[in-house]
Amino acid sequence: MSDVTTTDLYEVTMAMSYLREGMTRPATFSLFVRELPPGRGFLVAAGLEDALDLLSGFRVTPEDTEAFAEALGRSPQDLAALRELPFDGEVRAVPEGRLVFGGEPLLEVTASLPVAQLVETALLNRLSHQTALASKAARCVIAAAGRPVVDFSLRRTHGTQAGFHAARAASLTGFSGTSNVAASARVGLPAVGTMAHSYVEVFASEEQAFHAFARAHDGPLVLLVDTYDTEQGVRVATRVLRDLDRGPGSAVRLDSGDLGDLAARSRRILDRAGLPGVRIIASGGLDEYTVDRLVRSGAPIDVYAVGTRVGVSADAPFLDSAYKIVDYDGRPLMKLSSGKITAPGRKQIYRRPGDLDVIALADEPPPAHARPLLETVMRGGRRTGARDRLDDARARFQADLAELPADARRIDGPLAPRAVLSERLSALAEHVRHALGQPGTGPRPPHP
Amino acid sequence: MSDVTTTDLYEVTMAMSYLREGMTRPATFSLFVRELPPGRGFLVAAGLEDALDLLSGFRVTPEDTEAFAEALGRSPQDLAALRELPFDGEVRAVPEGRLVFGGEPLLEVTASLPVAQLVETALLNRLSHQTALASKAARCVIAAAGRPVVDFSLRRTHGTQAGFHAARAASLTGFSGTSNVAASARVGLPAVGTMAHSYVEVFASEEQAFHAFARAHDGPLVLLVDTYDTEQGVRVATRVLRDLDRGPGSAVRLDSGDLGDLAARSRRILDRAGLPGVRIIASGGLDEYTVDRLVRSGAPIDVYAVGTRVGVSADAPFLDSAYKIVDYDGRPLMKLSSGKITAPGRKQIYRRPGDLDVIALADEPPPAHARPLLETVMRGGRRTGARDRLDDARARFQADLAELPADARRIDGPLAPRAVLSERLSALAEHVRHALGQPGTGPRPPHP
Repeated sequence: MSDVTTTDLYEVTMAMSYLREGMTRPATFSLFVRELPPGRGFLVAAGLEDALDLLSGFRVTPEDTEAFAEALGRSPQDLAALRELPFDGEVRAVPEGRLVFGGEPLLEVTASLPVAQLVETALLNRLSHQTALASKAARCVIAAAGRPVVDFSLRRTHGTQAGFHAARAASLTGFSGTSNVAASARVGLPAVGTMAHSYVEVFASEEQAFHAFARAHDGPLVLLVDTYDTEQGVRVATRVLRDLDRGPGSAVRLDSGDLGDLAARSRRILDRAGLPGVRIIASGGLDEYTVDRLVRSGAPIDVYAVGTRVGVSADAPFLDSAYKIVDYDGRPLMKLSSGKITAPGRKQIYRRPGDLDVIALADEPPPAHARPLLETVMRGGRRTGARDRLDDARARFQADLAELPADARRIDGPLAPRAVLSERLSALAEHVRHALGQPGTGPRPPHP
Repeated sequence: MSDVTTTDLYEVTMAMSYLREGMTRPATFSLFVRELPPGRGFLVAAGLEDALDLLSGFRVTPEDTEAFAEALGRSPQDLAALRELPFDGEVRAVPEGRLVFGGEPLLEVTASLPVAQLVETALLNRLSHQTALASKAARCVIAAAGRPVVDFSLRRTHGTQAGFHAARAASLTGFSGTSNVAASARVGLPAVGTMAHSYVEVFASEEQAFHAFARAHDGPLVLLVDTYDTEQGVRVATRVLRDLDRGPGSAVRLDSGDLGDLAARSRRILDRAGLPGVRIIASGGLDEYTVDRLVRSGAPIDVYAVGTRVGVSADAPFLDSAYKIVDYDGRPLMKLSSGKITAPGRKQIYRRPGDLDVIALADEPPPAHARPLLETVMRGGRRTGARDRLDDARARFQADLAELPADARRIDGPLAPRAVLSERLSALAEHVRHALGQPGTGPRPPHP
């Protein structure tokens, strides 16, 4: 499956028409999330590196035009104008790890109209999904309030590619490990994980299972204690860890039942046995909501392993993202469809300490004490700098998180800040709307 | 990213221990969905072909053992026993397209214990996610009640791999097209799609946009009419289609607003203009719930384009799937963790006309008039037959759907049938449970 043909057909039909009409002047498209889903007070920008990888190598090959021709029932000659089309545009984007809010452009592409159009689906797919996963992961880190969080999601993510993106989102937002071996090295996280219930079941007893596990693995052990009865399992684990003198750094894992209550009981058993250094890991259907409740209840859980619900962003599995044309050949454009109005023009987001973000036109002077969020990351189809490092993205995330208002950080019922539009942008939007003669379809505004 | 290392680390730690202990006798693992999510009255089995592709080529390479060693902080020598391990087991599975219910094994693997364990994550990932997507897609087909449904999900699926799986699920369940060009040929669906709002905006008027589109594309046209004002857009489309004599087979697409009301108004405009053959396509945040309401309201919509909510299975983005050991070396096993009890033994599902399914032990005689759902699809690590064809899977889906009880087909509040356990399976489960001495961790039952 070529990256170029993994696209919606309409990108191709539109590009063909633009080429036929000679409409190849520069267009700017803005990629943004209209409204945050309930349950999200912020978004963590993610997917940009993947998008830039795509754009850096983007070129319509002869095989691609054949695939397009077949899909359209046309001859490849009809698509000749698309052949060898590279992505040679400019990309301005919010770097990965930065927090963004509804209506704020995550990325703006300026390129020849057909080219800027052709990359729509690919960019939306990469940024929407990875931003959704990173935003969910970030909430788990907040909920854990300093305790380590690890990613166990691979078995139920939407494919293995999504599993990799979940592990990457975990790394970006400060998780401490992932169960995904292939991803672990690539995203710079330790690979973590120990045993399944099946492992315990297949031995003649829990004790034999734990001993066998210890024979195969040096150093600290993590023993799964809830295959039969959790408290009894903790007692067995305690005995094994003491007998083998493997307590320090080891842990027991609880994966079912009332995790808060079982953690408290487990802690008592371990402490009474003189194993205060044995940690308790909780897993099993956890997400930021359950982690938050456990943390607030004072449950003595040392590590939270979150899985499926985080890896699929279960409460908000998609973002209402859009890729809208905002300028063609210097003419600002906007859409008026009911409920989907977009603001015209090439934009910049300005962040001000202790205040709401301002969305402004890219060429207007910045507000006082504000810093711009969109950076030029690609020019002429090439990256303007070195690849971004995941460590740097994580540092940006942590810096932004530290400044996030408490209302937006909240796990239950967060309130997302909403950027204000600059006066010039508001005025332009008003002008374009009037010129479009809403609600009719009057003539377009003149070039400014 | 190797397919073998795209796995949870614990599969490796367990396999290492099994090899060290010489525990390499045949084990059977059962992959099933415990309970259906609310909003699902059935599941459509999917992902098997992908899983068999993985298993057919499964072999732990020296590079894989190095990656495992690095993840574990061990020397590659410690993992020598894993090297070159192939998947050489037996797989019995429900073919793709069949409907299944909670607790019913979608697949059972019988292989040497470490090998059967190593493939857990990969199998769960493939079957859970693809079954979730196919089940969601199936509900859209039911809701559309015979009207064509097309897939527009690629831009917001969880990556491009998930986008392909969404298109494949669409084909499996009888959709009429997909916007995903790369997927369309592979899944045997026409590629569909026409223009975005940006296309209309960039021209000086809707009329000019529609004319330009017609110049680039022969044959029927699909014109997007809601960029500014929908009724006005339909009038413009009507004029263009009549002027060009391109009405028959063409369509207008509504993508926002009150789709039922706008469709009725659009229909009137088209009919009055003498264009009864111009169809109406609806899109914009649709899923089976909204399609069902529109169909029941009598909205004159001819084609439903569903996207994001279907491509991510938004109301049930994951299934509570499990891969549990049920037999080791002829000894039936089960798990007792609270709320997660599994039934022991190698199983078969029997389907009886007009009655609930029976889950039985694989070696017991079938109930009267019942047909088995699990088929042996792999033996000695090789497929027992040719690759399954998607057309055959679709035919199975349609046959099963025709027999599905109305309660389970329902869009709102469906009731999923629940299979009954055979007497022998119930008795075995009771026996194993007692032998395990619940709630303690007593001795394991003797080999039967």
